[in-house]
Amino acid sequence: MKDVRIKGFEKLTPYDVALKKILERVFEVDKEEVYIENSLNRISAEDIVSEIDVPNFNRAAMDGYAVIAENTFGASDTNPLIFEVIDEVNIGEYKEIYLRDYQAVKIYTGCVMPKNADAVVKFEHTVKIDERRIQILRPVTPGKNVSLKGEDIKKGDIVIKKGELLTPYHIAALAGIGRRKILVYKKPKVLILSIGNELIEPGEKYVKGKVYDINSFALYSLALKYGCIPKRKILPDNYEKIKNEILNSVNSFDIIITTGATSVGKEDIMPILVNDIGELLVHGVSIRPGEPIGIGIVKNKPIFLLPGFPVASIIGFLYFVRPVLEKMLSTKFPRVMIKGTLKRKVASTLGRRDFVRVKVIREDDKFFIEPIRITGSGIISSLLKGDGLLIVEENVEGYEEGEEVEVEIIKI
Amino acid sequence: MKDVRIKGFEKLTPYDVALKKILERVFEVDKEEVYIENSLNRISAEDIVSEIDVPNFNRAAMDGYAVIAENTFGASDTNPLIFEVIDEVNIGEYKEIYLRDYQAVKIYTGCVMPKNADAVVKFEHTVKIDERRIQILRPVTPGKNVSLKGEDIKKGDIVIKKGELLTPYHIAALAGIGRRKILVYKKPKVLILSIGNELIEPGEKYVKGKVYDINSFALYSLALKYGCIPKRKILPDNYEKIKNEILNSVNSFDIIITTGATSVGKEDIMPILVNDIGELLVHGVSIRPGEPIGIGIVKNKPIFLLPGFPVASIIGFLYFVRPVLEKMLSTKFPRVMIKGTLKRKVASTLGRRDFVRVKVIREDDKFFIEPIRITGSGIISSLLKGDGLLIVEENVEGYEEGEEVEVEIIKI
Repeated sequence: MKDVRIKGFEKLTPYDVALKKILERVFEVDKEEVYIENSLNRISAEDIVSEIDVPNFNRAAMDGYAVIAENTFGASDTNPLIFEVIDEVNIGEYKEIYLRDYQAVKIYTGCVMPKNADAVVKFEHTVKIDERRIQILRPVTPGKNVSLKGEDIKKGDIVIKKGELLTPYHIAALAGIGRRKILVYKKPKVLILSIGNELIEPGEKYVKGKVYDINSFALYSLALKYGCIPKRKILPDNYEKIKNEILNSVNSFDIIITTGATSVGKEDIMPILVNDIGELLVHGVSIRPGEPIGIGIVKNKPIFLLPGFPVASIIGFLYFVRPVLEKMLSTKFPRVMIKGTLKRKVASTLGRRDFVRVKVIREDDKFFIEPIRITGSGIISSLLKGDGLLIVEENVEGYEEGEEVEVEIIKI
Repeated sequence: MKDVRIKGFEKLTPYDVALKKILERVFEVDKEEVYIENSLNRISAEDIVSEIDVPNFNRAAMDGYAVIAENTFGASDTNPLIFEVIDEVNIGEYKEIYLRDYQAVKIYTGCVMPKNADAVVKFEHTVKIDERRIQILRPVTPGKNVSLKGEDIKKGDIVIKKGELLTPYHIAALAGIGRRKILVYKKPKVLILSIGNELIEPGEKYVKGKVYDINSFALYSLALKYGCIPKRKILPDNYEKIKNEILNSVNSFDIIITTGATSVGKEDIMPILVNDIGELLVHGVSIRPGEPIGIGIVKNKPIFLLPGFPVASIIGFLYFVRPVLEKMLSTKFPRVMIKGTLKRKVASTLGRRDFVRVKVIREDDKFFIEPIRITGSGIISSLLKGDGLLIVEENVEGYEEGEEVEVEIIKI
């Protein structure tokens, strides 16, 4: 039980370096096949190649008469051309029809065109003479009112790439090419341990000196949001209990996250524990909030030691766990960024990356970014008031009031 | 079986009027209690009032010594003040301690302050003399390094309002005030019927003249995305079958959506059917795409007759079903809007609302909005290529290339 913790954080690891160290050690999760209707928000684990042309036949794009376009040339109100109506095609039907000159087939949007028909004359441009004959009053050019086979998607086209996040529009496209199932990445399993003698479960009767656990719920919900299967638990500041929990669970999870006990105080046993049972890659990152973050590997699984301060643990998830999930899933989650004018000066320190909680305000047509004033322990209120995070990078000393900055909206 | 369909859509209902007609007829869904960890993306059906102060005690915000601030006045390196250390408070502990003048208690961040202590002197500003005595080298003002009881949230404060969409940050706040469960709106149940003789299920062997059903999958996924419990089914263009399906199911669902058979052709039986078994409120809306949309009520449930064209059915969902869900859930779903410069002219017609599929392009620091060129039946490709929708309202004739426009990003 060697004390591997940094001393007072005098030597912090830069954010990029810390992230790189853990990214190098994680790999893609396994894949599984799911029905497309169950694939919303999953990540495709394959390039989806269409096995059909879409449309899969030359398709009428209008209600009217399918004809050989050339036969209609010269048609007008004063020179109506007479066509013989030899058949009718209804939606969903397939008929082998071959037109001779000046023959037409009654047809509807979405129907299969007769073999050698290459245009549709709208009903409005025809006059019915009797059951077998019509007048055509307008010429059509070849291809008019017809969707050609393969015009939308060609057999062999890649429709969705590996790593794409599946939206309703992707699922619609999968249906359209006839796919019933899709290979996706398995949902990463995430174990979340809130550590602290002071923690009690929400819903338990309040006991003086105790605090309702926030972190495991915040991280549980974030894990759900980013497509994981989370499990949460509170543990006391007890080395053996935490060690046993981790060693007993590590094989069933892809990621372990702990919160609390990661600083340099006497109860901050997590860095020591990870070093004892695995490999501590980083302890202390030059970010704020989140300085005491530790990152390690236990039995080949990444373990994140996030601080007990809820905002820092959330930032730890968003800026360390999320990129690791992205590597495990070969994807990039969408981030909603917004630009606006800073309402108040933001100070920072060179060499440190700051994550500043901000509120986005829309006034008329402009966006303004207001850093949230954190009074004392305004944890819950800042979580509820904030819309996003302004990142002040290491080489920036801060931003002046009135500067244009870009923030990530984390509430969407 | 009266033909109530509008004739050739010569008299279309404006979008706002159509939407208002259905909004007037829908009401809040029922509520249910769920554990907070199961409440992500649900809608709160109650104002959440905190039953505790947060913090629930005066809390140390620094590791150090709790003191009566006044006693430290005048302390400096050259004038160290000697304090008696009478106790230590550990995290999660509650001790009834009352300080006399020049007494101190060793304390850690998050611990309960002694009754009449009002500040914490950091360890760094003290020198240990022996186990019972320290020197204090810096004065502290009352309140320094202490979070006051109720500073974050006061007992009785409304923390979350009815109608709020629950994000990880809301769930964290609920945990922090000790809430184990929350009342949310029940997930609306949505029946989705894709109607058409040409439709086959994805995964079925392809048959000439048939088309893989896209709509029920697109709408199923959208319903999931907006927090519903959807069920999907394909039905042929058969009046009796559709009627029986709707009448047998209507009591088990909150919303019914059909796609296809809603225009004015011979197979477009849906408006007639809805009029026969319920009330047809609207048929034909002056929007594009989506003109043939019908809206009605069957046994007090809203029924949406969306067009068979997939893009139109998606737009029908987003701009008719979504606002109805918002009314049922007393909420407003977040919409991601982005502004950019139009890359190409967009033409529209006065009196009609157009929904133009666009791609958003970021070049350097600027956003550009590119309307998607729809070649023929490029349905699938346009679903995949598009990022959002540009709405051209009724009183706008179109937009010029280079104009600044705002679009809704629908892929997030």
